[in-house]
Amino acid sequence: MALVASVHAKAIALIKLSLEMTTAAGSGHPTSAASLAHLVTLLMYHHMRYDPAYPNHPAADRLVLSEGHACPIVYAAAADLGMVIGQDPQHWRPMTRDEALRLRAIDSEIDGHPNPAAGFPFFPAATGSLGQGLSIANGLALAARLDGLDKRIFCLIGDGESREGQIWEAVDFLVDYHLTAVCPIFNCNGYGQSGRVSLQQAPEVMAAKLRAAGVDVQVIDGHNPTAIQQALAVHAVHAQAAAATPCAIVARTVKGWGFTSVLGSNVHGRAATEEEKIQALATLDTTAQRLGATWRKGDLGIPPLTTTPALDLQPVQPTPCFREALQRYGQEDMLAQGKMAPRRAYGVALQALGHANPRVVALDADVRSSTYSENFLHDAALQERFFECRIAEQNMLSCAAGLAAGGKLPFVSTFGKFLERAYDQIEMGLISGFPLKLVGSHVGVSLAADGPSQMALPDVSFFRAWTTLRSQAGKPLLYLLQPADAYAAYALTVAMAAHEGPCYLRTLRPDVPLLYNDTTAFALGGHHVLAEGHDLCIVAAGYMIHEVHKALPLLKEQGIAATLVDLYSLPFDDVAILQLVQENQGQVLTVEDNYGASMGSAVADALAAHGGAYTLMQMYVRQIPKSGRTPDDVLRSLHLAAPDIVQAAVRMLDVAAR
Amino acid sequence: MALVASVHAKAIALIKLSLEMTTAAGSGHPTSAASLAHLVTLLMYHHMRYDPAYPNHPAADRLVLSEGHACPIVYAAAADLGMVIGQDPQHWRPMTRDEALRLRAIDSEIDGHPNPAAGFPFFPAATGSLGQGLSIANGLALAARLDGLDKRIFCLIGDGESREGQIWEAVDFLVDYHLTAVCPIFNCNGYGQSGRVSLQQAPEVMAAKLRAAGVDVQVIDGHNPTAIQQALAVHAVHAQAAAATPCAIVARTVKGWGFTSVLGSNVHGRAATEEEKIQALATLDTTAQRLGATWRKGDLGIPPLTTTPALDLQPVQPTPCFREALQRYGQEDMLAQGKMAPRRAYGVALQALGHANPRVVALDADVRSSTYSENFLHDAALQERFFECRIAEQNMLSCAAGLAAGGKLPFVSTFGKFLERAYDQIEMGLISGFPLKLVGSHVGVSLAADGPSQMALPDVSFFRAWTTLRSQAGKPLLYLLQPADAYAAYALTVAMAAHEGPCYLRTLRPDVPLLYNDTTAFALGGHHVLAEGHDLCIVAAGYMIHEVHKALPLLKEQGIAATLVDLYSLPFDDVAILQLVQENQGQVLTVEDNYGASMGSAVADALAAHGGAYTLMQMYVRQIPKSGRTPDDVLRSLHLAAPDIVQAAVRMLDVAAR
Repeated sequence: MALVASVHAKAIALIKLSLEMTTAAGSGHPTSAASLAHLVTLLMYHHMRYDPAYPNHPAADRLVLSEGHACPIVYAAAADLGMVIGQDPQHWRPMTRDEALRLRAIDSEIDGHPNPAAGFPFFPAATGSLGQGLSIANGLALAARLDGLDKRIFCLIGDGESREGQIWEAVDFLVDYHLTAVCPIFNCNGYGQSGRVSLQQAPEVMAAKLRAAGVDVQVIDGHNPTAIQQALAVHAVHAQAAAATPCAIVARTVKGWGFTSVLGSNVHGRAATEEEKIQALATLDTTAQRLGATWRKGDLGIPPLTTTPALDLQPVQPTPCFREALQRYGQEDMLAQGKMAPRRAYGVALQALGHANPRVVALDADVRSSTYSENFLHDAALQERFFECRIAEQNMLSCAAGLAAGGKLPFVSTFGKFLERAYDQIEMGLISGFPLKLVGSHVGVSLAADGPSQMALPDVSFFRAWTTLRSQAGKPLLYLLQPADAYAAYALTVAMAAHEGPCYLRTLRPDVPLLYNDTTAFALGGHHVLAEGHDLCIVAAGYMIHEVHKALPLLKEQGIAATLVDLYSLPFDDVAILQLVQENQGQVLTVEDNYGASMGSAVADALAAHGGAYTLMQMYVRQIPKSGRTPDDVLRSLHLAAPDIVQAAVRMLDVAAR
Repeated sequence: MALVASVHAKAIALIKLSLEMTTAAGSGHPTSAASLAHLVTLLMYHHMRYDPAYPNHPAADRLVLSEGHACPIVYAAAADLGMVIGQDPQHWRPMTRDEALRLRAIDSEIDGHPNPAAGFPFFPAATGSLGQGLSIANGLALAARLDGLDKRIFCLIGDGESREGQIWEAVDFLVDYHLTAVCPIFNCNGYGQSGRVSLQQAPEVMAAKLRAAGVDVQVIDGHNPTAIQQALAVHAVHAQAAAATPCAIVARTVKGWGFTSVLGSNVHGRAATEEEKIQALATLDTTAQRLGATWRKGDLGIPPLTTTPALDLQPVQPTPCFREALQRYGQEDMLAQGKMAPRRAYGVALQALGHANPRVVALDADVRSSTYSENFLHDAALQERFFECRIAEQNMLSCAAGLAAGGKLPFVSTFGKFLERAYDQIEMGLISGFPLKLVGSHVGVSLAADGPSQMALPDVSFFRAWTTLRSQAGKPLLYLLQPADAYAAYALTVAMAAHEGPCYLRTLRPDVPLLYNDTTAFALGGHHVLAEGHDLCIVAAGYMIHEVHKALPLLKEQGIAATLVDLYSLPFDDVAILQLVQENQGQVLTVEDNYGASMGSAVADALAAHGGAYTLMQMYVRQIPKSGRTPDDVLRSLHLAAPDIVQAAVRMLDVAAR
């Protein structure tokens, strides 16, 4: 059969180039790459509808390489096909074989693991931290469905990485959302880094698990061109049929196919030496001869893109002010009470943004009634853009990454504590360059009664690392936002949507007094001065603004006129903050209800960089908290209540006066 | 049947107390609690072998409440049984009904979610962040097996939380390790916080998934005392039989059992109002009558502990010095090269510690040949204490927590990047008070060729938050350790084992020059001065020590005599570091190859707190890196190579001279 001969020929050619590339780089995974050679050949040369000159065309089929380390095989195909590469779409150029041989070089787009941000647009998202690809594929499929595109999303998943629970979260999600457009292909080559994979990831067990989850499964020989072609054809039918069951392919493959006599299947993540490479290439030539592998141009062909998407490029509408939004959604009476939980305001903003911007989508993990993302779901005009991800934060985050890859603007909410479950997935999204809008609710200790297992406390520290970076465009890579009241939460959610990059917004559980109004301006990087003094500059954010507010009159009684800065953004304007500090005798007290290495430490960075004589005292949570029935109880137990703030200020200024 | 009548009576009594408790607290989860009432009654009053006066006795059966929010039902039983509570075992006291009613109060041991560290020793580990309990149970079972104890580990898991992939990682692990002592009980009450759980978590689908994974399943009515008793009896047989298949129980239950007419099953995480409570209590009384519920003392009884463990309390042996350990394990020639990767030294130390301390266990996630934890596995005397967790970091970390709960000292290694996958699990372990020894390899950018998906870069920032806390004993809660050479890595691994609390050790991939020797002392909280100058204090750690070393002679050429501090520990001795800074004109340059908000920021904290006039310049990774073939390539691209350090120092001192 002509197809068989051509597939073998092309697969072997790609394996050979993978070997050349990895040996040139001195590292890489030629054996994993080889196990995918036939699958990749049929996908990229014969089955996927795409254009190598525009591989991320909105209507194009996409390939997510979940087992990112196998990327040399895709790079080899890209070089052979002259696929475009380059960071700037204006200057894309066809990839050459020479460029393939520059794999992993510092100035090459051919990165060690898949990363579109490095300049390889064929890959929809960065992978390499394992187990995340199927969730990304789910997100891409949701985006395509919203856009009315019939594109298919192929996802190549290693058997070893199928041990990651996230894969099974993704399978459940795929069935819940009936994502027949996704084609999960499990590459069962039987070996991980440390020898044989567990029998729990053997092909027959994988198939049984998938079937138990409600997925049809085809188990095939992943090096048999006819079997692959047939399995992909079956999937194509499933993808089109409205009532079909989602289906997956479990492929038995050989790690190091074609040269196991040189590098055994148990070799992982090591390139062949020059000598081994020569042997392997010769062995592959022998294999090609034995299989009658012959490339004939007409046997394989990339199907053209049949859909020209009529993407609904509705312009973004202006967002109403908070009061107007509340009126619009029948919640106007909320403001009358003079206090409101910032998480509620987030829900209102999310709903308003949903109407203003058709790209906005919302995801939550079974706590939508706590985060108030439910406002979005309960709006009939928006509900198709809401995705309930259940208690599976990892899948939710990678799914959001996939939605972003599909052109959407994902707002992802859960308790700040549970976002921690997906920090690795968030990091992969940031590496990909996606504008993830992350919303962690119930942050700090004001959640009180539920105790530390539900409180976000080291989150400021983690996200602050990302605020110290610059994006490729030279701007802060991420903004961390801590609204202290409902107006601030509303305005910062709107600002976050308008910003091109990723953000992390922290919302509070309790009702807190309103501090601002609709005329207050909030900007990423901004702050507000809530009280002007000259003895001490108190810098706080979120819930602690209210605690400091209680402390201010007590300080006045002690003869201390304090400035209060609501430092709602990290990063912030260092110069402006230093100016405020100087106006307060260089005395700074930071107050936060999370662990250290956080906001106060960001202020320390600014002071220490400037080099003047400043004194900073940091108040933060210094032990793991326990449950208390009220925020006050918990704050007192942590020495962070208003009287503690007063005491700290007095002690500090006494010391300074000496 | 007498048992049936008594179980109903007790279950209803516990539900009533749960209602009282949660209403008194003003929050909590009475409906979830009620769904577990019959299961908990049979477990705690009739099936588990334990002593309420010593609930964490090494030989006792244990109960892990994975769905931690349902804890009021267990607290109710504990109060009824007079179970001991209290943070200090010397002052344990029997819990009373009044104490139950102080649920969630700030000075109560009855925390909002299970936490032994809060003073409730019946719970082996903190839970409440969902999906982690079965992994903890696995760890407890492994510990019991090592100690030759036949105890059983019961784990109550919610259907909603079974969406977490970690549950399925734990199921695979349980089958791989044939942990028949673990009894997973899935509580299928059909509701999560946001309404019905997905059909993917319906009882029949759960059963099918478990069977596909190789687990026997009994599907029962979770409010039928006879069915529960029989299912637990079947498990008891499985637990004893050497060749039996692991088995699980899937229980259909009702959320809010006995009072759904008052609080529907769709009520989650809300306590009954006083009025609702009165109604619910009356409804429960009616139900009790209808079921003929009557408590008779003899019907149920806690089986006594049959095993008195002859726990092998071998004393901890001294650990040899590095050279001696290398000799012992036939790796003496390593030192001759003058350089060695710190990760290799970790492997040697781990092996030595395994011999010195029988409590030491090792876990890895399919990268043991990269972290060098394989040394432990390949030592015949130690291999039974090595657990290959495959590519499933979340299960690995919670499993380590379970091992710690079982009295072991777990050393957990993987790439630092992949530990991020389990930050939430690590946090739960820290909340529990476990001495987790975490080892992240391939940290910083010196991994180079594999790119950012494999590099640990925000990890210092995350773990630094934990270094700002104090333990209950008033000591630093966690030490973050960054050895710069093989001697340091060996010594710090040994120091970490000797320390009672948790630690995070970062190891490097490349071979780096040896800086120290066997006479160098390393202490948690310590540092070393590697060069003494007077113009500038350069503070670095890990790989960057070597880069600064290259810069020192170049600085000398520029007339700059710099001090070099190897700040290998966070927290560190602030006073000593400030002294060094003062001796260097108050000029400090920090150099690290991870993101900001990290070591340099810790130095900023110290400087800003002191309040003198210091100037700090921080060098760190300011953009997401890409692959490079060598560490040098990557450092240069990030402006962190030796010439960049020189340039920064010159710029800094020029500015200072003005």
